[in-house]
Amino acid sequence: MKLLAGRSELFKASEVRELLKLTEGRKIISLAGGLPDPQTFPKEELAEIAQEVIRERGESSLQYAPTAGITEFRKELTNFLQRKDVKVDSSDSVLITTGSQQALDLISRVFIEREDVIIVELPTYLAALNAYTLSHPQIIGVPVDGDGMRVDLLERELKKVYAKGKKVKFIYTIPVAHNPAGVTMSVERKKALLQLASEYDVVIIEDDPYSYFVYESGVDVTPLKTLDKEGRVIYLGTLSKILSPGLRLGWVLGNHYVIDVLERAKQTADLHTSSLTQYIALEAMRRGVVERTIEKARQVYKVKRDVMLDSLLDHMPENTWWPKPVGGLFVMVFLPSLEIDTRKMLTEAIAMGVAYVPGASFFSNGGGWNSMRLNFSFPSPDKIAEGVKVLGSLARDKIKTPSKPITPESFYGM
Amino acid sequence: MKLLAGRSELFKASEVRELLKLTEGRKIISLAGGLPDPQTFPKEELAEIAQEVIRERGESSLQYAPTAGITEFRKELTNFLQRKDVKVDSSDSVLITTGSQQALDLISRVFIEREDVIIVELPTYLAALNAYTLSHPQIIGVPVDGDGMRVDLLERELKKVYAKGKKVKFIYTIPVAHNPAGVTMSVERKKALLQLASEYDVVIIEDDPYSYFVYESGVDVTPLKTLDKEGRVIYLGTLSKILSPGLRLGWVLGNHYVIDVLERAKQTADLHTSSLTQYIALEAMRRGVVERTIEKARQVYKVKRDVMLDSLLDHMPENTWWPKPVGGLFVMVFLPSLEIDTRKMLTEAIAMGVAYVPGASFFSNGGGWNSMRLNFSFPSPDKIAEGVKVLGSLARDKIKTPSKPITPESFYGM
Repeated sequence: MKLLAGRSELFKASEVRELLKLTEGRKIISLAGGLPDPQTFPKEELAEIAQEVIRERGESSLQYAPTAGITEFRKELTNFLQRKDVKVDSSDSVLITTGSQQALDLISRVFIEREDVIIVELPTYLAALNAYTLSHPQIIGVPVDGDGMRVDLLERELKKVYAKGKKVKFIYTIPVAHNPAGVTMSVERKKALLQLASEYDVVIIEDDPYSYFVYESGVDVTPLKTLDKEGRVIYLGTLSKILSPGLRLGWVLGNHYVIDVLERAKQTADLHTSSLTQYIALEAMRRGVVERTIEKARQVYKVKRDVMLDSLLDHMPENTWWPKPVGGLFVMVFLPSLEIDTRKMLTEAIAMGVAYVPGASFFSNGGGWNSMRLNFSFPSPDKIAEGVKVLGSLARDKIKTPSKPITPESFYGM
Repeated sequence: MKLLAGRSELFKASEVRELLKLTEGRKIISLAGGLPDPQTFPKEELAEIAQEVIRERGESSLQYAPTAGITEFRKELTNFLQRKDVKVDSSDSVLITTGSQQALDLISRVFIEREDVIIVELPTYLAALNAYTLSHPQIIGVPVDGDGMRVDLLERELKKVYAKGKKVKFIYTIPVAHNPAGVTMSVERKKALLQLASEYDVVIIEDDPYSYFVYESGVDVTPLKTLDKEGRVIYLGTLSKILSPGLRLGWVLGNHYVIDVLERAKQTADLHTSSLTQYIALEAMRRGVVERTIEKARQVYKVKRDVMLDSLLDHMPENTWWPKPVGGLFVMVFLPSLEIDTRKMLTEAIAMGVAYVPGASFFSNGGGWNSMRLNFSFPSPDKIAEGVKVLGSLARDKIKTPSKPITPESFYGM
């Protein structure tokens, strides 16, 4: 059993993950995950649909399916995306994936060779970082602020890379309702990003799980995919937050040349995604169940976000800072002390019955150690308030001499 | 778009695959795939179960789940496997995978580093070869005969590898109802294989999708896992043939140390397998639906196998040879001419309305070009007879001067 590959070291146990695993099944207030609220699941409708698609279409819904996905579902999904203002070009194609996690993994395997340069945001989605890291890229982080990725800093990084004669394989971004930062990229920034990508001929990976949940009016949620005129944006989406994560359905939309290669990679990875859950999702889309779920969930999550924001105001130490999330499921909280390490604090928090994800996990450059990501979609409003209160008292306890307010830039820039 | 990794070349389009893709949706007799007969799907029972698990347990069945799989399902599956005489040690653990294809992929990623040596059978399962190849191993093929893997030749290969100071990462085998060869390893060979694995301290990957379908009496189907006393067998299984492939449910059973690493690799690959399909399978196992499906399918497939064997006798050119499959879903047919290339012949066969998989795809050493794998589980008995007749006439047409009978050894040994 000493015969596992050296590569297996990459699949190492994460300390944070092991800690959070300990909380499973325990009575703990988890602000850690990104679970949807089960009350948003359209159980009755899905029960009815599941029964029907097995009874009436079992020859297909229980059988093997094409690797790209069920043709009817891919069509229905394309219509759905177009209704959401996602532009689908005639040269585009759609690949159904086993959750968008698989899309991230396939992208890592198909795009990245060892030492290739990729660019991500600071902070960025933890599980994307993990997927990319397996292919040993050189990762450059570009800070975000209230208007999304700092495109000026992006340009500086691109110049540096190209000055060394290297290229950038792709830029990975979550432009709308960013996880974990909660911010949304302004239209100007989106255009500037596309302009830079064009100049440097770089692919953009646009991850868009949260644009359905924007709680403020006047926020532009136009995808980069829609603004792109050159077929360089690869667009990722998922049903996990807008219908059910248990179905494990995600998708990649992009130029057919790229999608074909991803499809072949998927064939080796798991042959195809569950036919049954694709048929269920197909019917749920046709009958408007997905759209109704989005409406319901948006209302539920807005209330919960506001409870969390109020609780933070009530309980966090002076000079704690958090960007107000215009959308999504998370608040990123920065504690007013550079000496605090939220990874260490997590053990105590769990002992006091509250879990969160330490912010450092989202920073590719080792920053963010005094921040934490708090989820508000899963816990009840009462538990949100209770959890934040516990974290607030724990933080107050640790912070004997609170620093001056720390500006967003100084955090994001770390 | 010139920015895909060099690795993406690995995910190249296979000629055979592209040909077979052309047959999708066309009126063609496909002896190519390994699809179960949809009449074996327990539609009514699964429709009922699906409705119930969503309505009554939707909070869990529609929610995210642990990467290792739903705890209840893993327990029920362990019981099921034990009833099938698969030994589960106290140090063992089970990981639920998205079909057993994912298990092959995870094994490739966790075990194999570039240039590592692995051993497979000649022939072996095509999709396993594809999964392993992505990690760039050195692949050694060991021929099988009517009693399974030639353990004497395996020993010779092991000696050669170790004489060079190298090690073998694992031996991959399908001991019972082999795909594509249809043969089953004798108990003596199984014991000898385990003995050799022990001497050389090699891991064994045992792939067991077909042991439920053995059509002859007196065939020993004891898994290597059960005979293993050292925890070196990693056992793969799937519900694809014994319940429904559309659920995408497979599993890996083995020493918890290995399973833990595979689990972490799976977390990056797709987070977890569909909770919904796991809950459906859990209930199907509890209610005996899986066992009843096995009974029914075994009867259906035995009849179809016999139709195929009779048709081959009736229609194939003299001196064509095929091992009689004691189980599984395939017959491997070797044409009596070393000049014939079944890859080239496939284009003509498809033009005449019949598809198969060229045998060369199953040989890691480039052999088997005059063989083809024929599936009998999916087509109706009539179509089996018709398809074999077409292939027979096509082969007769090509083989002007049939060679002497070619013995199994000379084929397997290629």
